[in-house]
Amino acid sequence: MSRAKASTGGTRGFIVPIGGDGRRIRKASILRRFVQLCGGSRAHIAIVATVSEMPDAGYRYERAFRDLRVDRVSLLRFGTRADCESERDLEVLDSVDGIFLMGSETVHLSETLGNTSVAQKIRNRNAQGMHVAGTSTGAAFLPEQMIASGQSGTTPRADIVELAPGLGLIGQLIIDQHYRHQDRLGRLLMALTYNPLAIGIGLDEDTAAFIGPDHGLQVVGSGGITIVNPSQLQHSAIHPDRRHAPVSVIGLHLDILVEGDLYDLAAHRATIKR
Amino acid sequence: MSRAKASTGGTRGFIVPIGGDGRRIRKASILRRFVQLCGGSRAHIAIVATVSEMPDAGYRYERAFRDLRVDRVSLLRFGTRADCESERDLEVLDSVDGIFLMGSETVHLSETLGNTSVAQKIRNRNAQGMHVAGTSTGAAFLPEQMIASGQSGTTPRADIVELAPGLGLIGQLIIDQHYRHQDRLGRLLMALTYNPLAIGIGLDEDTAAFIGPDHGLQVVGSGGITIVNPSQLQHSAIHPDRRHAPVSVIGLHLDILVEGDLYDLAAHRATIKR
Repeated sequence: MSRAKASTGGTRGFIVPIGGDGRRIRKASILRRFVQLCGGSRAHIAIVATVSEMPDAGYRYERAFRDLRVDRVSLLRFGTRADCESERDLEVLDSVDGIFLMGSETVHLSETLGNTSVAQKIRNRNAQGMHVAGTSTGAAFLPEQMIASGQSGTTPRADIVELAPGLGLIGQLIIDQHYRHQDRLGRLLMALTYNPLAIGIGLDEDTAAFIGPDHGLQVVGSGGITIVNPSQLQHSAIHPDRRHAPVSVIGLHLDILVEGDLYDLAAHRATIKR
Repeated sequence: MSRAKASTGGTRGFIVPIGGDGRRIRKASILRRFVQLCGGSRAHIAIVATVSEMPDAGYRYERAFRDLRVDRVSLLRFGTRADCESERDLEVLDSVDGIFLMGSETVHLSETLGNTSVAQKIRNRNAQGMHVAGTSTGAAFLPEQMIASGQSGTTPRADIVELAPGLGLIGQLIIDQHYRHQDRLGRLLMALTYNPLAIGIGLDEDTAAFIGPDHGLQVVGSGGITIVNPSQLQHSAIHPDRRHAPVSVIGLHLDILVEGDLYDLAAHRATIKR
């Protein structure tokens, strides 16, 4: 399922998309779990930020990691594509145990990081065992394809969603975030209509999917994760001149998982925590 | 699937839940289709209203039916349970070809009409061939059970929905309305967790399900219908003291249908219009 292969024979690191809402995440079990994964207090974690509407948010996450007694936290800011070629920052990324990718306006992530040396470094190091978390649009950006923009609504319409290239850590996965309060099923279903080999994941706020190297996904956090399997999907024709018309989509398999539940992304099988 | 049986050997009438938004319905194809079903210009249609937040709405539907050249339109208002024993109104219901049930605050429908002579009359006459449409909460009220109140959100929680008895025209169906713009998947899924033998139907505004006596459902209108089949459903335990906690729900089958598409409620099979 992953595009990035471990060239040195290492086990790939975890991929941890988080549904957003920084305030609650910083208090909750998700960061703690990520820190444990990265080695606990001895971990070195890099917070990666591009242009953000909240310039202080990077410092707040830095403090949250320090509150969890992480020894070394590096805050890396990439404002332009040229920044993403900095040898010094690439060296930092070579030494960290985990990366925490902050959200931004979606196009900025793709436009700033896409196909740069930083993006290539993150892919290679994840394939060799470094863990990568991303929150909000930083979560959507982790797979090969991302939802770049879209509207709310339960019913899919051809014009409800725009896709863009993602970071490429994992293939055949479409991630949507801030899911619970923004009624995003329609745009996720429409994205899957364009990518019927992918699994769709809708992350509530303060909720994360910890995806291991074996393609096992475990839910951590206070909300739910909606998992849509479109492998049996059929849909009606999409007319180029009627892109706002609703589209029939039949044969979807839907699971909603909460903390502790598991999903096998290879076998498409959910297991509820007992 | 229906509770009311045709005692005189007639074929039961259509049941037509409509997702709401009176302004668009009055202009659109849904009323026209309902009038055709009832016999066209020679039809006699009763508009049934209980307490409404918009007291003029009954007159507007009356005019809409007259604009469709329906000869006889009777506007029946039932403000109290005592009103629902009126011999004169029961005689009108005995002679009509179709009933159009207006929306109201949900509890009013159940409290005013539930288990009255009017409710019994509508059940009996529907079993003998009279057609029954309902819009907004009037749609949700048609089956044996209805969603009486609930919150928005995609993720099911035990406290997200309250159920109440419906009119009882059809069993094993839970209908939710105003679906597209109000993010009601979570409450529909929670209602199905309590009723796993039922099929869940989420109706967008200006969209109707024409359900025939053979349990075939056809979509009419400008939006979509979300159909959730929980027959393979498993869910996590619901703790009485944690009713706001999200609930795992796995094994759901989801179809989204648009105008012209069909769903067989007995066989649980969707067919897309070609």
